[in-house]
Amino acid sequence: MPTVHIELFPGRTLDQKRACAVAVSEAIVKTLGGTYDGVDIVFTEVDKSNWATGGKLWSDKTTTPAPTPKPGT
Amino acid sequence: MPTVHIELFPGRTLDQKRACAVAVSEAIVKTLGGTYDGVDIVFTEVDKSNWATGGKLWSDKTTTPAPTPKPGT
Amino acid sequence: MPTVHIELFPGRTLDQKRACAVAVSEAIVKTLGGTYDGVDIVFTEVDKSNWATGGKLWSDKTTTPAPTPKPGT
Amino acid sequence: MPTVHIELFPGRTLDQKRACAVAVSEAIVKTLGGTYDGVDIVFTEVDKSNWATGGKLWSDKTTTPAPTPKPGT
Amino acid sequence: MPTVHIELFPGRTLDQKRACAVAVSEAIVKTLGGTYDGVDIVFTEVDKSNWATGGKLWSDKTTTPAPTPKPGT
Amino acid sequence: MPTVHIELFPGRTLDQKRACAVAVSEAIVKTLGGTYDGVDIVFTEVDKSNWATGGKLWSDKTTTPAPTPKPGT
Repeated sequence: MPTVHIELFPGRTLDQKRACAVAVSEAIVKTLGGTYDGVDIVFTEVDKSNWATGGKLWSDKTTTPAPTPKPGT
Repeated sequence: MPTVHIELFPGRTLDQKRACAVAVSEAIVKTLGGTYDGVDIVFTEVDKSNWATGGKLWSDKTTTPAPTPKPGT
Repeated sequence: MPTVHIELFPGRTLDQKRACAVAVSEAIVKTLGGTYDGVDIVFTEVDKSNWATGGKLWSDKTTTPAPTPKPGT
Repeated sequence: MPTVHIELFPGRTLDQKRACAVAVSEAIVKTLGGTYDGVDIVFTEVDKSNWATGGKLWSDKTTTPAPTPKPGT
Repeated sequence: MPTVHIELFPGRTLDQKRACAVAVSEAIVKTLGGTYDGVDIVFTEVDKSNWATGGKLWSDKTTTPAPTPKPGT
Repeated sequence: MPTVHIELFPGRTLDQKRACAVAVSEAIVKTLGGTYDGVDIVFTEVDKSNWATGGKLWSDKTTTPAPTPKPGT
């Protein structure tokens, strides 16, 4: 514990997941405490045809949101 | 999206959650891409009497695991 | 928010999911308030061999339940 | 089945949940098929201090999003 | 791993959860393999006013289902 | 109800899931009460490349944990 579930669109590489697992585990331990080895992370890939926002499937959206600048930048 | 669910024991302060929300959102965007504003994080506090590992409720465990050094340290 | 997760058996067409996304988002906003664009819906397809009711996998059940009349009809 | 989980902010009345349960169950059956009696709906109330979007807890946001017109209106 | 989430109505005693944690962990290891210490169980108590079946909240149902005999009995 | 979600690595046979569904349903009813037919169990198979513990994907771990003796043995 903690246990982290991350729902995301498919298409990330194994290296991206590796990096994400390290970065999120570190972020969790740094801010919430607990032990690094106790952090479980589960990635759930959700196809764009299975995710709707505002009543519209993402597979039907023609534009993807542009990257948003991080806060403070 | 992505959407992140974090199950954790109660007791973290609002400031810890604030810091965690920022740190995890940054970790996600940095490693997986996507937009910072698109990251949703939901904290679910699970009482120790509602979480068992190895058949034993955490509220019944007398010792808590010691902090684990981060990898590479 | 709200975020809606729908677990269902596979086999629905894209058109069914499109219609469901609209109908459920409208139902949510109409009854709970909030914004239409803020409703996220995630479909999770669960194979019949991965869902058991009463100790029996649905892939092993020979009869499927007949459609139930809506209340009031 | 299907099973529907709805994560939402607290504050809805029992009557709102009653209406939502009916409306969502009807929307599901109408668009996806299946039986009305087979639809399970679970509401999970998430406090604004436990939900962050874009790295910011909703309890720290000063403005709430205005109602969005439904598509087509 | 495996990780088990159990959604249930409130009202069970700590002793019932203790017994359940042991019994479910044993059932998992016996049938699926894996290690006993690796089984995580999280109980999520869902109030009857937050769970609807067939469009009706359980808090509005006047009759509760009678215990069903186990299969084979 | 109760509803049980079991996240596990892929590779179990249909017979293992059948046995698990029976054993877990019995364990639930025996310890928590409720009706056998009311227990829903959903298996979610999580690939080892989608599950990290301690910042490391299970697909990158070279050693798997040895079976742990049950408590009391």
